[in-house]
Amino acid sequence: MNRQITLTSRPIGYPKTSDFNVVEVPIPTPEDNQVLIKTIYLSVDPYMRGRLNAVKSYAANVEIDEVIVGGVIAEVIESKHPNFEIGDIVNASIGWQEYGVAGGDDVRKIDPTIAPISTGAGILGMPGLTAYFGLLEVGQLQPLETVFVSGAAGAVGSVVGQIAKIKGCRVIGSAGTDEKVDYIVDELGFDAAFNYKHVTDYHTELQTLLPDGIDVYFDNVGGEITDAVFPNLRINGRVVICGQISQYNLEKPETGPRFLWHMITKRARIEGFLVFDFVDQHPSALAQMAEWLQQGKLKYRETIEEGGIESAPAAFISMLKGGNIGKQLVKIAELDT
Amino acid sequence: MNRQITLTSRPIGYPKTSDFNVVEVPIPTPEDNQVLIKTIYLSVDPYMRGRLNAVKSYAANVEIDEVIVGGVIAEVIESKHPNFEIGDIVNASIGWQEYGVAGGDDVRKIDPTIAPISTGAGILGMPGLTAYFGLLEVGQLQPLETVFVSGAAGAVGSVVGQIAKIKGCRVIGSAGTDEKVDYIVDELGFDAAFNYKHVTDYHTELQTLLPDGIDVYFDNVGGEITDAVFPNLRINGRVVICGQISQYNLEKPETGPRFLWHMITKRARIEGFLVFDFVDQHPSALAQMAEWLQQGKLKYRETIEEGGIESAPAAFISMLKGGNIGKQLVKIAELDT
Repeated sequence: MNRQITLTSRPIGYPKTSDFNVVEVPIPTPEDNQVLIKTIYLSVDPYMRGRLNAVKSYAANVEIDEVIVGGVIAEVIESKHPNFEIGDIVNASIGWQEYGVAGGDDVRKIDPTIAPISTGAGILGMPGLTAYFGLLEVGQLQPLETVFVSGAAGAVGSVVGQIAKIKGCRVIGSAGTDEKVDYIVDELGFDAAFNYKHVTDYHTELQTLLPDGIDVYFDNVGGEITDAVFPNLRINGRVVICGQISQYNLEKPETGPRFLWHMITKRARIEGFLVFDFVDQHPSALAQMAEWLQQGKLKYRETIEEGGIESAPAAFISMLKGGNIGKQLVKIAELDT
Repeated sequence: MNRQITLTSRPIGYPKTSDFNVVEVPIPTPEDNQVLIKTIYLSVDPYMRGRLNAVKSYAANVEIDEVIVGGVIAEVIESKHPNFEIGDIVNASIGWQEYGVAGGDDVRKIDPTIAPISTGAGILGMPGLTAYFGLLEVGQLQPLETVFVSGAAGAVGSVVGQIAKIKGCRVIGSAGTDEKVDYIVDELGFDAAFNYKHVTDYHTELQTLLPDGIDVYFDNVGGEITDAVFPNLRINGRVVICGQISQYNLEKPETGPRFLWHMITKRARIEGFLVFDFVDQHPSALAQMAEWLQQGKLKYRETIEEGGIESAPAAFISMLKGGNIGKQLVKIAELDT
């Protein structure tokens, strides 16, 4: 049988495990040009929270009793597509389930010789690409600039800071535990970092750590940390809006200070993006990321929940509350091969 | 004698005439490469409000007892610069005074045969150029797109809408009186407009007037009208931050809804600018604007206060409260020639 996680009720505020259900259905059969895949790792990501709301976002939301959307690292166990054979490792978007079918054009083959296959959902997958395109294409980062990244110990933020260091920039980050702060400074090479739960005056903290101001702010969190950035922007500063995780689980929308005046005085830019907008450049970016990884210029951590498909909701909720360092994954099964 | 308007006290909220003083000083003498000019028209503009605060902005603020900053249209009455002779009409930034000296490189000659010289402070001056570069360079307006401009009957907004119509776009505007709304639709050719003092639900109003959403929002006002734009942006929408006049005279800063999430779902961009950033392109833009004006494709109105230099504070305050249609000027003197 194939076990799936479906949506039982739309979360209000933080999701609860009771908002999800485990259902058993038959393992599907692939049709021509499809593959049947077995999930090895499930990826849980902040963007999924938005899909659980009734309001449509850039992609369709999840309806009640539907399988939760999401990416997986999986093994091909039956192939009706000429480009795939049994044992191939792929990245696919079949959602939270143990088995699924996908069209051959909708899955990406992963080379297991480069790095552990789990990285296909992390530093060599969507989060890594998000960091790459957000910082370099949207943020147009230049050498010697200053960078601030919020959510800096997460799957995206930890890569943003490292790419900025590769590009010769001064980088600071914010994160939510002292362990994360130590990790990004001591292991990843950030120039400085602060625990946003211990700092009360973000404005002064940013001014202290980057006294000449911020050229590029890579925003994963939104809210009060982001508010403090605008007065600290340099002329022609860029604010890259990648995520707003501080806002996703509010029961009532927040208000905040109006800051658009700063955009004029700083001739600054705010820009949002989706990694899918750069899909034509994904292969070349992945090649670059793999090279940096093999050269030891990029490091990564993963937080892996080992409890199988039933533990996906808990892992998702933990990630939304900042329980992870680096990429949060759920281990679903062992490789057959 | 030369009469000047100086700052007596920093305004709290809307400026009062008692925040200003009239002082008499000797008429200055030009040195080598300078000209002595006599002010014909004084320009009062929203940006000046920021200069009266103690907080430094992109330019130095006005200190107590200093002359209020601002542009003038003036006549050269003595020249020690080889490129200028008596009777030349120039645009200069000598502030609120009847006479001033300026370096030859700091003044721009105006051709009085193209249009009335007052336009040198309006549609063929800083406000016109602000509209031009904001819409076409910052906003990257494309044919057939949809445009919303706030403060649409002002010196900048009225030009923004007309350039957008020249470019084949659908344009709507907001303004603060029914007379202004009629003016921009009936005389300037906006497709639609609304009086923001009579409409309560800006979100629905924008949705009704531009049901397919907004490609470019040219923001002169900020505040609640701007809040309503973000959910109505189209994919790849652009928000050009030119001014935030609704915020300049608040005694206490406002808060507003957080909207950065929309930047991601819409892959949208917010960008602030100053017209001076495009100074190299000013001559070619002015030539284009003059051509459109002579072809009848651009129209303009002016609101001229005739009370001389003493009336500048009152005209400034009236403009900040929306008393003007088109460019607000103060007539200071008649031409000698």
